[in-house]
Amino acid sequence: MMEIIKYPDRLEWEALIRRPVIDKTNLDKKIIRILNDVRIKGDRAIFEYNFKYDGYESEVIELTNKEIEKAACSVSGALKEAIGLASKNITTFHTSQTEIPTTIETSEGVSCWIESRAIERVGLYIPGGTAPLFSSILMLAIPAKIAGCKEVILCTPPGPDGEINPAILYTASLCGITTIFKVGGAQAIAAMAYGTESIPNVYKIFGPGNQFVTRAKEMVQLDGIAIDMPAGPSELLIISDKDSNPAFVAADLLSQCEHGEDSQVILLSDSLDTISQTIAEIGVQVELLPRKDIAKRALANSKAILLKSINECFDFSNEYAPEHLILTINSYKSYLGQIESAGSVFLGPLSCESAGDYASGTNHTLPTNGFARAYSGVSLDSFIKKISFQEINNKGLINIGKHIAYMATAEGLIAHKNAVSIRLKTIDNV
Amino acid sequence: MMEIIKYPDRLEWEALIRRPVIDKTNLDKKIIRILNDVRIKGDRAIFEYNFKYDGYESEVIELTNKEIEKAACSVSGALKEAIGLASKNITTFHTSQTEIPTTIETSEGVSCWIESRAIERVGLYIPGGTAPLFSSILMLAIPAKIAGCKEVILCTPPGPDGEINPAILYTASLCGITTIFKVGGAQAIAAMAYGTESIPNVYKIFGPGNQFVTRAKEMVQLDGIAIDMPAGPSELLIISDKDSNPAFVAADLLSQCEHGEDSQVILLSDSLDTISQTIAEIGVQVELLPRKDIAKRALANSKAILLKSINECFDFSNEYAPEHLILTINSYKSYLGQIESAGSVFLGPLSCESAGDYASGTNHTLPTNGFARAYSGVSLDSFIKKISFQEINNKGLINIGKHIAYMATAEGLIAHKNAVSIRLKTIDNV
Repeated sequence: MMEIIKYPDRLEWEALIRRPVIDKTNLDKKIIRILNDVRIKGDRAIFEYNFKYDGYESEVIELTNKEIEKAACSVSGALKEAIGLASKNITTFHTSQTEIPTTIETSEGVSCWIESRAIERVGLYIPGGTAPLFSSILMLAIPAKIAGCKEVILCTPPGPDGEINPAILYTASLCGITTIFKVGGAQAIAAMAYGTESIPNVYKIFGPGNQFVTRAKEMVQLDGIAIDMPAGPSELLIISDKDSNPAFVAADLLSQCEHGEDSQVILLSDSLDTISQTIAEIGVQVELLPRKDIAKRALANSKAILLKSINECFDFSNEYAPEHLILTINSYKSYLGQIESAGSVFLGPLSCESAGDYASGTNHTLPTNGFARAYSGVSLDSFIKKISFQEINNKGLINIGKHIAYMATAEGLIAHKNAVSIRLKTIDNV
Repeated sequence: MMEIIKYPDRLEWEALIRRPVIDKTNLDKKIIRILNDVRIKGDRAIFEYNFKYDGYESEVIELTNKEIEKAACSVSGALKEAIGLASKNITTFHTSQTEIPTTIETSEGVSCWIESRAIERVGLYIPGGTAPLFSSILMLAIPAKIAGCKEVILCTPPGPDGEINPAILYTASLCGITTIFKVGGAQAIAAMAYGTESIPNVYKIFGPGNQFVTRAKEMVQLDGIAIDMPAGPSELLIISDKDSNPAFVAADLLSQCEHGEDSQVILLSDSLDTISQTIAEIGVQVELLPRKDIAKRALANSKAILLKSINECFDFSNEYAPEHLILTINSYKSYLGQIESAGSVFLGPLSCESAGDYASGTNHTLPTNGFARAYSGVSLDSFIKKISFQEINNKGLINIGKHIAYMATAEGLIAHKNAVSIRLKTIDNV
């Protein structure tokens, strides 16, 4: 069960905030071998790893359109309706992130603006196994399509018979993805980074995964492949007060804990009553969960911390920089300006994390492990590049040319100066 | 001199587009040693490397306010005026990138929006040496300040006597940076990534540098430190036609070539005359440059390519994904929609790259080496995180709750379902 910590001194916060540090030396060695294997041997390496790690012994790794279409038949109407609603909301929210270029005249005659362009080729990784995360397809494929990415491919690990969960295939197809490969793990990341005979390389790789997948993504960055963000275990921080509903808070904490035994939840409060009642509720609710063993192990990593005030809770939360932050406190709106670092914020008693995980419209691909200090979650921005443009006329060059020449000279870059002065000479009024 | 290639077949493009591949094995080994040294030994390692690489033998690595203020005296009035103008334009353009949150109701009762927050602690690296890039301080410190970053530190290599170019100190001070350390190279990146006794660690590192610096930045990503972008040698691609001014084009190509011998320029045209005249102009102009030896070696890596049409030039440019793209062609505005990948685009005969390098207002920290396929240049976005928010009321939960429960169940995540259903039970109308 969660450890309770009462009024820790600020000097103790650093230790409370620290995530478990995992020695990655051995992991890295294994991944480097997989990356090199795929780079050198291409498909051949993919076939070998598919057999070794997923028990799938076949050279058929691309799904046919027929297989993808067939999957739709085995998805229930109710689930299709749910995926449809989620898709609509995610589409609405991410479409609203489209930016319209505005031209700025910085000096008279000097016009500057920014235009967005889709990343042409992107790859999505979707885990299989016990929790087939078809919801992650919505979160990645929908903004990719809104952005206008021309080529969107998807890799997901097959079962021993090559089967892929139908909900994954149905969702991919709904989002317009028709290029799907049966390959998982670091080998899938390698294939999308470097390309094989069957799998095209892409410029940016997205999606959740186990430690092999997430570390492989971090490592291919060294070869210039972009990724959505670094990742660690999922996490949730809740700020509560005396009026929070302990049953709701307990349910939210458990929803995070069932993700994996390395998940971490933090409950902050200025009310010991709320903490005690929440922990009692967790004790009841956890026993009813199919994944209760996982949840209990995650709880053992987790903490309930009693602090002096709600303001202090926000200070702690900002230092922790949680992936998910739930505010179930009175007057929560008045605290929003205090939030400095978090992936996604859920406001009030009814905004549970599950809503954002699936269907409210926000993205659930978020920075964990304190990465929210520097990284944003996935948004439409993640699938575009912003290109700056400038157009300078005679008047503009007269206004700024002399100054450019001074600066270039001071940096010792005379050819930079010449590029301006050769033009200024041709303009009459100078 | 530049190689001329006439009407290459599309199959040959891949080879023309490829940047020189450098084996980084030895470089990586050296950098790993430096990173580890600084992580373990802190300041002690910084002192040693300062002496070893920059000949600076002192334990004084932080500049005093007095030293910074004094520098201002030795910067000429004309240069101050130029820096002031550049600062004004960069401020105007980057301030215009501020986003105002818009709340979207994705389903009735489900409100979602995004708010920006500054990255609290950022570090800037500025090279010293022959070309003291004070202009890069403007490009990094100004958006950092607009974003509201609380702590902005700067590292730059000292001369043997510990001196720093006054223009660097003046510019830093103008931008409100008062925490400046005399340390360069990979050791500076390590210090900002991991912290030492004197140098605080930061969450994101920005700035140009030699191959040690840029590779060290890429490598600290593996420890979760964010960086502006990966980097390679600087580059420029120009699309020209029969009416382009060969003297202007030559001056622009040379301004890129003087950066370093590994710089690359590409001239595309549908006019052999323009190519020939430009190359003749380069021959004249290069001889007058103080850095002509560097420029000539860069020209030897560079190419002028004759293509069948301006449309084909854009196809080639998109595949190359240049850091800088100059369009000095007729009706250039009608081609903008064709641009897919580029760092920054300069339109028409008077928009020289130097303008964007210094003073037009756009950022000069841009993706090189083809990284423009997936990365944007530095902008206000680079200094902020975007946090999503959601607020769901009774009506909202009724609208989406059932669907969330279906999806969670299908993913096997029953605690996620419970978090919704425990709330739905308390809402009357269900």
